[in-house]
Amino acid sequence: MADSATVLVFPIYLGVTHLDFTGPHQVLTRVPGLEAIVASARGGEIEADGLRFCGLPALKDIGACDILCIPGGMGSTAAMLDEDYLREIRRLGGSARYLTSVCTGSLILGAAGFLKGRREACHWAWRDLLPLFGAIPDPGRVVRDGRVITGGGVTAGIDFALALAAELAGDAVAQTIQLSLEYSPAPPFDAGRPETAPPEILAQVLARMERLAPRRRAEAEAAARALAK
Amino acid sequence: MADSATVLVFPIYLGVTHLDFTGPHQVLTRVPGLEAIVASARGGEIEADGLRFCGLPALKDIGACDILCIPGGMGSTAAMLDEDYLREIRRLGGSARYLTSVCTGSLILGAAGFLKGRREACHWAWRDLLPLFGAIPDPGRVVRDGRVITGGGVTAGIDFALALAAELAGDAVAQTIQLSLEYSPAPPFDAGRPETAPPEILAQVLARMERLAPRRRAEAEAAARALAK
Repeated sequence: MADSATVLVFPIYLGVTHLDFTGPHQVLTRVPGLEAIVASARGGEIEADGLRFCGLPALKDIGACDILCIPGGMGSTAAMLDEDYLREIRRLGGSARYLTSVCTGSLILGAAGFLKGRREACHWAWRDLLPLFGAIPDPGRVVRDGRVITGGGVTAGIDFALALAAELAGDAVAQTIQLSLEYSPAPPFDAGRPETAPPEILAQVLARMERLAPRRRAEAEAAARALAK
Repeated sequence: MADSATVLVFPIYLGVTHLDFTGPHQVLTRVPGLEAIVASARGGEIEADGLRFCGLPALKDIGACDILCIPGGMGSTAAMLDEDYLREIRRLGGSARYLTSVCTGSLILGAAGFLKGRREACHWAWRDLLPLFGAIPDPGRVVRDGRVITGGGVTAGIDFALALAAELAGDAVAQTIQLSLEYSPAPPFDAGRPETAPPEILAQVLARMERLAPRRRAEAEAAARALAK
């Protein structure tokens, strides 16, 4: 690692949504001088939705980072109850220049105590958990509040990463990355947000989320109680 | 593997661009009854832009698949000269219901002999290599010609995958996936295509591509000669 490199850490965990970090990783590893490290609480291997990511360093073995970027996923509320994981998030985040997240990764930033009184993005279906940590939910796709930059659900990570690339290296660098990745999106439907999705589609997705909601809310509440102590 | 599962294979290789398959993988693994397998010529592990994907089966150990989806990357032209890899692409693709690709993965479909006289998408900077294989370059982001469905550069894989999800399972299923992944893109710049990027940005990206072009064209030409034999 060159002394001059900007070090970005993606701390992953069981139940992470892989696109939450592979999207930003593909964008941000093209920023000159940036070194990206994907790591986990205990190192080794993490399986995510059937993909196995291996050779991961343990978070405790990373001395410091300039940017912490926490991906989301259905395991995010369980991860915030993993003391080893949360301790390293607090340590790395405490000295990072930027605290960032994608999707429900912002809930983990909250559980670590970094979001009190700050505005954050989150996956639309889980945004209402942010106030448990004193955070202010923001429906924006990419939201900045001081050193905290957060993206909305899953695919918002690509927009977030281009915004961060521009912040780190200037608009021209971000634009060359956008062109290299041919990021000129053309979704076949306009169903990407609850405000635009057909009502029956929204109802279906909400029904699925609601089955998971009691467990996730209980985990987030336990993390909020631990934070308040 | 249930007998009734729709089997999709992503055949990866050294020099693959990981977002070319992680994007579609995240979308398509949410299609009910679809089983996605990420595999490589010899199995084991593939490193892609610093991420290590492990536990990969070897392509020869996969009996058949319904959908072949070949990701692109700077290694795609070298991969088409790997006889073990190309033989398995021909075998699996020969009986697949859909032949698909993202980015320069379409060049590999071409090298396998699947594209003669067909229209295909490809990453904008490498589209001009398609005619070496008798294929017709198409500037579309998602292009369909019979059983061949191809996406443009890197991030087009997400649009491609939603279109394929709709083809396989209907528009409503694709829309629930789009909403779950909050795919309502909002790029911070309009630089994602050569037609919209500022001229100096296009010039910079082209200069970088042109350094790689002689090697890549030579590899594609060698593959085209082998195909013509």
